[in-house]
Amino acid sequence: MSDCIFCKIAAKEIPATIVYEDGDVLVFMDIGPIIKGHALVIPKKHYDPVTQTPDDVLAKLHLVAKRIAQAQMNALGADGVNIMQNNGTAAGQEVPHIHIHVIPRFSDDGHHWNWNAKKYDDFDEMAELAGKLRKHL
Amino acid sequence: MSDCIFCKIAAKEIPATIVYEDGDVLVFMDIGPIIKGHALVIPKKHYDPVTQTPDDVLAKLHLVAKRIAQAQMNALGADGVNIMQNNGTAAGQEVPHIHIHVIPRFSDDGHHWNWNAKKYDDFDEMAELAGKLRKHL
Ligand SMILES: [Zn+2]
Ligand SMILES: [Zn+2]
Repeated sequence: MSDCIFCKIAAKEIPATIVYEDGDVLVFMDIGPIIKGHALVIPKKHYDPVTQTPDDVLAKLHLVAKRIAQAQMNALGADGVNIMQNNGTAAGQEVPHIHIHVIPRFSDDGHHWNWNAKKYDDFDEMAELAGKLRKHL
Repeated sequence: MSDCIFCKIAAKEIPATIVYEDGDVLVFMDIGPIIKGHALVIPKKHYDPVTQTPDDVLAKLHLVAKRIAQAQMNALGADGVNIMQNNGTAAGQEVPHIHIHVIPRFSDDGHHWNWNAKKYDDFDEMAELAGKLRKHL
């Protein structure tokens, strides 16, 4: 897509600090890292969101993300890694070209995800939602 | 693993509200949802973290997560979906059996991830980290 910043990065029309590249996948540094070392894994071809991304492309993206996670542990000494893929502005996605955030984490890095777990009113409410999902699989 | 709660759920020794099941993968409702409808995708066999999960298993987990995301959009009317996989307590992982959070998001749901983007001191700092990652791929 001509107005997509990640397509332009993939086409080398906009510079990025590249970590990995093959025929289908590009990995580059996020210039606004949650934690320094934060990388983005994208397909060179434009897809969005995850539900419109072909299975083979999606699988390949996640296998590359796994390798990046291992490199963050080995090269940066990360104690953990977040692998996060946001779909839609409601989910916090900023660039509408599928991308996987691979974020190195350190025990003392001070970041918290605001993991504000809610509760269901009762078991039936949860079971009803599960039933709706099952019907749409 | 005998003391793993997700292994026990996979073995049906502990009840869960199941959304999807096949020979390798189980999807069930998170009882502490970020947003109601939040599901967890796990392999029935114990692996942890992502870097120790075989490629074929990891790919399959993410293809199932994609289907769950589509169901959250279709069945629950989600405007977006977060797909998140945390590795290590430093990353916020609570159960050390690989699991993918699939979280339906709504424009008005009020959740924010505390996306506190940092800045590099300068370009060289980012380039140096990228170079370290490249050497360990
Ligand atoms: Zn694009
Ligand atoms: Zn387990």
